Amino acid sequence: MLIRAAGDGDRDAVADIVCAIAAIRETYALPRDLSPAAAQAAWFEAGATVLVAVEDGIVVGTGKYLPVRPAGGAHVATASFMVAPDATGRGVGRALGEEVLRRAAAAGYAAMQFNAVVETNVAAVALWESLGFQVMTTIPAAFEHPTAGRVGLHVMYRKL
Amino acid sequence: MLIRAAGDGDRDAVADIVCAIAAIRETYALPRDLSPAAAQAAWFEAGATVLVAVEDGIVVGTGKYLPVRPAGGAHVATASFMVAPDATGRGVGRALGEEVLRRAAAAGYAAMQFNAVVETNVAAVALWESLGFQVMTTIPAAFEHPTAGRVGLHVMYRKL
Repeated sequence: MLIRAAGDGDRDAVADIVCAIAAIRETYALPRDLSPAAAQAAWFEAGATVLVAVEDGIVVGTGKYLPVRPAGGAHVATASFMVAPDATGRGVGRALGEEVLRRAAAAGYAAMQFNAVVETNVAAVALWESLGFQVMTTIPAAFEHPTAGRVGLHVMYRKL
Repeated sequence: MLIRAAGDGDRDAVADIVCAIAAIRETYALPRDLSPAAAQAAWFEAGATVLVAVEDGIVVGTGKYLPVRPAGGAHVATASFMVAPDATGRGVGRALGEEVLRRAAAAGYAAMQFNAVVETNVAAVALWESLGFQVMTTIPAAFEHPTAGRVGLHVMYRKL
């Protein structure tokens, strides 16, 4: 698996993944009928560095990092990750996470904060804990899960 | 003091307050040299309901509320408040806060979450605690204060 910076030629493949994850509605608060153009705009937002995971020439996942807020808050990064639904369970998320952490630390960020990790997404929570994040708090009933009802959103954090 | 919805005629006065607060840099992570146009764009963001506090025909403060995230997270509101630097200490923030809470509850939001209350802004922390919010966690050293150095940002929350 190759992890590299996303180029213009990856934008459609990344949008496909974002749309698929949005439609599943279990891990991200995105409109279920997100258009590919809206997915691209949301993922490739201003200030974000976007990476892709590539296997056999196919984009199987994406991660991005950017300042969690501007100016006086810009020394803390936030990040987001998505793995194609047919590519889960074989380390794509972990490989992306490790590379994002490495790059964010090299870029001088002091810490990384996730604002909204769905508490029922136990694979993601376990992954981030194994990479040094801790759950700082859980906002109760803050996410409408399509089958579990309203579940909590974790704020997770680690120093870099 | 009158609290009412902001109209087009209030946008310049609101931008003046946002620019003044940005320049002070003690409570918001905004560029210190924010232009009035950028201040308007930031404050009157998509989906936000903006209120103003008016005394003797002068806009002395502003508050806004909107969904903290889209789709599956849109039942939780977030809100922001600014009081003109020469109008602090006489209840403008409290009046805006009470009205925003009343309107957000009437609009059907289940809860309200603040993402980043600067821990050294003790007047704001005390105000929100008196209006039923609790500090859920504090992200350490997440805000570069111009005189205090890196201080924490509180995540605050209350049900509606």
